[in-house]
Amino acid sequence: MPFVYGRVIRFHETDAAGVVYFARLLTLCHEAYEASLAAVDIDLKAFFSAAGGMAVPIVHTEADFYQPLSCGDAIAIALVPKQLSLHSFEIAYTISNQHLPSKHSEEPLAWALTRHVCMNLHSRRRHPLTPDLVDWIGAVALADPAD
Amino acid sequence: MPFVYGRVIRFHETDAAGVVYFARLLTLCHEAYEASLAAVDIDLKAFFSAAGGMAVPIVHTEADFYQPLSCGDAIAIALVPKQLSLHSFEIAYTISNQHLPSKHSEEPLAWALTRHVCMNLHSRRRHPLTPDLVDWIGAVALADPAD
Amino acid sequence: MPFVYGRVIRFHETDAAGVVYFARLLTLCHEAYEASLAAVDIDLKAFFSAAGGMAVPIVHTEADFYQPLSCGDAIAIALVPKQLSLHSFEIAYTISNQHLPSKHSEEPLAWALTRHVCMNLHSRRRHPLTPDLVDWIGAVALADPAD
Amino acid sequence: MPFVYGRVIRFHETDAAGVVYFARLLTLCHEAYEASLAAVDIDLKAFFSAAGGMAVPIVHTEADFYQPLSCGDAIAIALVPKQLSLHSFEIAYTISNQHLPSKHSEEPLAWALTRHVCMNLHSRRRHPLTPDLVDWIGAVALADPAD
Repeated sequence: MPFVYGRVIRFHETDAAGVVYFARLLTLCHEAYEASLAAVDIDLKAFFSAAGGMAVPIVHTEADFYQPLSCGDAIAIALVPKQLSLHSFEIAYTISNQHLPSKHSEEPLAWALTRHVCMNLHSRRRHPLTPDLVDWIGAVALADPAD
Repeated sequence: MPFVYGRVIRFHETDAAGVVYFARLLTLCHEAYEASLAAVDIDLKAFFSAAGGMAVPIVHTEADFYQPLSCGDAIAIALVPKQLSLHSFEIAYTISNQHLPSKHSEEPLAWALTRHVCMNLHSRRRHPLTPDLVDWIGAVALADPAD
Repeated sequence: MPFVYGRVIRFHETDAAGVVYFARLLTLCHEAYEASLAAVDIDLKAFFSAAGGMAVPIVHTEADFYQPLSCGDAIAIALVPKQLSLHSFEIAYTISNQHLPSKHSEEPLAWALTRHVCMNLHSRRRHPLTPDLVDWIGAVALADPAD
Repeated sequence: MPFVYGRVIRFHETDAAGVVYFARLLTLCHEAYEASLAAVDIDLKAFFSAAGGMAVPIVHTEADFYQPLSCGDAIAIALVPKQLSLHSFEIAYTISNQHLPSKHSEEPLAWALTRHVCMNLHSRRRHPLTPDLVDWIGAVALADPAD
């Protein structure tokens, strides 16, 4: 099984059409990414404030929306990271109803992807993924028997 | 003990000063309110979309900020509702570090309040709190041995 | 020239890395979409609350991020809609510095896309784009001499 | 006249009750504060990232909500700052329909307040308001003939 992040949809995430605002879905996916980093003991505050002069900004994202989400819905976000190059990785997210969390579910609610590049903020150049990130990719990928 | 909602601060809740954006604290408090309603089996989707022609909009809010919150911080929001009149109630929220969730903590991180009035959306007039809400106030208040 | 929406980046749109949170860029693009609808006198409240039983939810989105955006930056979002089928359209957004708003700018800050399908909310089936939307696509496309 | 910030309500600011989410109102007020700082040439990026080791965090906020706001509504936020002590100031915000922007309007849509304390981030102690801020308060207050 991939890393799975559970979450209840909150009122502030909905819009006047009565369902989750489209861009919010990517925010939910990023929360799952944060939870998976914390699961291997990466310090989120230091990591995301680029305390070490290193950052891994998102350079590309995509999402497909199959079903609307409503306030109170319990969702499960399954996340699979993959290293793309020395400097980059991407994460695929499958969002489903928490009562059907399996990746074998025929009907996910949505799917999304984020692509990240490791940067040295001083030189403004690409930098190899840090050992922490390589370990995180390995740990989360290993957790997935289908890979 | 009052109803307590636990939550990890997420990256999107921070701002360029490196800490949680002030108005986000009220969003976190509203999440705690939602969780406490769900705990007594109120249907959140129906409740917040005013499906029955009844709504309880917030007419007043306040907050005091004592300490900044950072990405990755685990917080606990303790919530105490109180009926104010036939038509209205307020909720007091105490936000503390999750490792010190007690209301006896000497140093909460923040404090907030929301005041709600029950409205009939057809007549645009005040309406007595529904039995569901009166029961919710009683249940959450009963949960608090200090009251 | 395509329809262009100008906007200053606000503090709440930044995160603890000091720049605009990635998913916020899509929110900015949706604001540009709203402004372009209002420019042809579509009533935004009715349109987005699906007052007529018709909605045009976003079924796909993508974005590429070339440069970070900071609080106070004045950006220009140029928007080009295109009808894809009887029932669907997409919008391409080019985000640039407002002081270089031209589509001929060599270095946009970001690029994004949203794909929309017109739905009848009662039947839950696809519905031909309403005349309002077809007119909007024509008006905004006509505004672009390069198309 | 006080400093007035005009703004159209956007879809992402609404919730499933069909109106602006309560905490969003404070975000709109903070935008007005940012616009008023920019009007006296304060660099927003430097100011809000505490580039000079000085920050003016919000320590208290309140708001009263009189009327709901909908997607597409054009609002005007009138802002009046007031110095409270050597180290602190507060800002009162009156939110009204943009077609009735006067402070003499009988029916504002909402009212809010933020209280700010100047801090030296290195010493973690209060610091006198910087000359920039004192000048900003004077300039915006002078702009108000009623004060």
